[in-house]
Amino acid sequence: MSKIARVELTPVAFADPPLLNVVGVHEPFALRTIVQVWTDDGLVGLGETYAADDHLARLRAVADVLPGLDIFDVNGLRQRVSDVLTSGGGAQVGGMLNIQDPVDVVLSPYEVALLDLQGKQLGLPVVDLLGGAVRDEVPFSAYLFYKWAGHPGGAPDAWGEALDPDGIVRQAAKMIGEYGFTAIKLKGGVFPPAQEAEAVRALAEAFPEHKLRIDPNCAWTVDTSVQVARELTGVLEYLEDPTPGIDGMAAVARQTEIPLATNMCVIAFAHLKPAVLADAVQVVLSDHHYWGGLRRSQLLAGICDTFGMGLSMHSNSHLGISLAAMTHLAAATPNLTYACDTHYPWKTEDVIKPGVLAFESGSVRVPGGPGLGVELDADALGELHEQYLACGIRRRDDTTYMRTIDPEFSPNTARW
Amino acid sequence: MSKIARVELTPVAFADPPLLNVVGVHEPFALRTIVQVWTDDGLVGLGETYAADDHLARLRAVADVLPGLDIFDVNGLRQRVSDVLTSGGGAQVGGMLNIQDPVDVVLSPYEVALLDLQGKQLGLPVVDLLGGAVRDEVPFSAYLFYKWAGHPGGAPDAWGEALDPDGIVRQAAKMIGEYGFTAIKLKGGVFPPAQEAEAVRALAEAFPEHKLRIDPNCAWTVDTSVQVARELTGVLEYLEDPTPGIDGMAAVARQTEIPLATNMCVIAFAHLKPAVLADAVQVVLSDHHYWGGLRRSQLLAGICDTFGMGLSMHSNSHLGISLAAMTHLAAATPNLTYACDTHYPWKTEDVIKPGVLAFESGSVRVPGGPGLGVELDADALGELHEQYLACGIRRRDDTTYMRTIDPEFSPNTARW
Ligand SMILES: [Mg+2]
Ligand SMILES: [Mg+2]
Repeated sequence: MSKIARVELTPVAFADPPLLNVVGVHEPFALRTIVQVWTDDGLVGLGETYAADDHLARLRAVADVLPGLDIFDVNGLRQRVSDVLTSGGGAQVGGMLNIQDPVDVVLSPYEVALLDLQGKQLGLPVVDLLGGAVRDEVPFSAYLFYKWAGHPGGAPDAWGEALDPDGIVRQAAKMIGEYGFTAIKLKGGVFPPAQEAEAVRALAEAFPEHKLRIDPNCAWTVDTSVQVARELTGVLEYLEDPTPGIDGMAAVARQTEIPLATNMCVIAFAHLKPAVLADAVQVVLSDHHYWGGLRRSQLLAGICDTFGMGLSMHSNSHLGISLAAMTHLAAATPNLTYACDTHYPWKTEDVIKPGVLAFESGSVRVPGGPGLGVELDADALGELHEQYLACGIRRRDDTTYMRTIDPEFSPNTARW
Repeated sequence: MSKIARVELTPVAFADPPLLNVVGVHEPFALRTIVQVWTDDGLVGLGETYAADDHLARLRAVADVLPGLDIFDVNGLRQRVSDVLTSGGGAQVGGMLNIQDPVDVVLSPYEVALLDLQGKQLGLPVVDLLGGAVRDEVPFSAYLFYKWAGHPGGAPDAWGEALDPDGIVRQAAKMIGEYGFTAIKLKGGVFPPAQEAEAVRALAEAFPEHKLRIDPNCAWTVDTSVQVARELTGVLEYLEDPTPGIDGMAAVARQTEIPLATNMCVIAFAHLKPAVLADAVQVVLSDHHYWGGLRRSQLLAGICDTFGMGLSMHSNSHLGISLAAMTHLAAATPNLTYACDTHYPWKTEDVIKPGVLAFESGSVRVPGGPGLGVELDADALGELHEQYLACGIRRRDDTTYMRTIDPEFSPNTARW
């Protein structure tokens, strides 16, 4: 069987609009690391992950010990990652996630690359390695953001401003018009909850057939969460991370019938038992980037199924390799019954050759080629790497960027 | 990709010694169904499962709908099984297990056969399809039974009588001498607990380096279980199913430091949440025959890892296809840290060609060939099928057989 010969890690930066959230605003560029794993017989497997500099350092340390590993030895891969990272320390990935155990987050892009390699060697799409497609097309949601018209000092982007219910409905209309989404998620935590609830009601009125969600990223207290949940009962399919912590979520859950979803208080296997014991969440938003890749995301899916929790999918700003991996995973996951989140519409640049991943009626068709079914565009990769070198951003920091515009800004966590 | 062309189900019977247990005594023959799944390009995949007649009827109903299925579509397989079995009803497999939902138990041999086919088509051992071997040799335990010298009216078998501590120690010496096991399990529930505890202490004295377990199959009350646990603390590595039910086990667990293991109160995914909430068991004894095959046994393993439970492996009387499957699964399961149970030493007949599966120092080396790495012996299969037709047993019933010798016998469940 093929063995790993070498690994190439390429940090890239791609343009990102000024999307507002609880900790500030997206910087002009988002970062990713593109992982290429080469076998001794010349195949290349692809992975995509975060690019914060400490994460990149861990990825590099692991890359050093991978040559010689059999491409089918996913268990051996995890062991090597774990051995290299024994020094411990959190895997800060930037943004709002604070992952304490870095093993699964570092494992992820390598595991995806191995599955890509396995599929390429065997002539099978990744979805078949994961148990076979239960659906040929994976539905995603329209991921709406409050936003400025453009970055300060820059030209307005194609999406324009969205700072009130009208702006949000306009944005939804444009995104649904272009992509056909049948579910809508509003990123909240930016304005007082009454204002954001008003935006949700405006969306419900404008798109009565669409499933609706709001995610204030823990901007609310327990009491506020309960009150907003009461107002939006019958309007939301789920309420995402209204308040911080497993205990806080459990307190809200006891007082509402709306399922609570999370990608903030349950972001690692260690959080599942306390969450189950507290009955804190009803929907887990999986994300293969920090759940340890596609196989371990299937384990998470099986756990949700076994313990009576729903399953949806979280997304950070990402490129096409990740979208392909998310699509294969979702296609092979029977109980992933919610439309998945994706930031994909917000980006204007990519590292893969176009044509494979397209949204039709809000869904992406599972790539049929071997492995992930996507191919790197070497020129695009080079350009986005140059952009990474030039932009100066080395870890995502929405708060510091926001403070360059509003020096008084502090994150809205549990503010209201 | 290859598709299923046809399925062949062959019930077989193989000679079984008079092994005593809580519900009676093993009949002269144990039953299994050998599953052969043929692809349109002439490959054959193997599976092995129970052969009680209602189970066999379900297997046949599923066999009818499998032609056309892609051999990589394990998700599609489960869907077809589930669709066929919607009529519901339990999957009585004989013996002590009462499985309410038949889907996973019917799925299992077909899933194993598909993995065997995938491996054969790809030139990979099944262990590689499961994530790669974390160990090349899988340790098993010496599975001791109280027993008669031979079946009533028959000649004594090679093992002789074991009805007291001396007999058990003699049996252990023979089995360990021949197989090299480093862990010992005593099947109890036959004699009053003081007598069985004495046998455990005799084993501890005779084999001070060996790990010890006793499994009375729920013969004891909660109070008796606590008392025996107190006596055997420091002697047992775990105590298996001392008393019936999740609540009973939880009551015992609260009063002992010995980990409690089960293959009786947690035998399906639906039992995991109540068991976790009650903190009822510390070790789950997995068994791919009723946990839905190898992939779903991996899910069970991941659940145990996530919820802080240990993992070991249960066995009923079985043949070589099952031993191969158990070995591949155990080799790919990082947290399977206990020696696995197997009835293998008790059988004298098999359906596979010899030479692949051998015990050395109590362990079985993972077969290296493609798929499961074992091959059917057509003559042996034919003979054991004839034996099935001739023996008249259509479902395991240790109690009725025991009553032909002791008309007053009733199962010892919670007797002491
Ligand atoms: Mg979220
Ligand atoms: Mg048992």
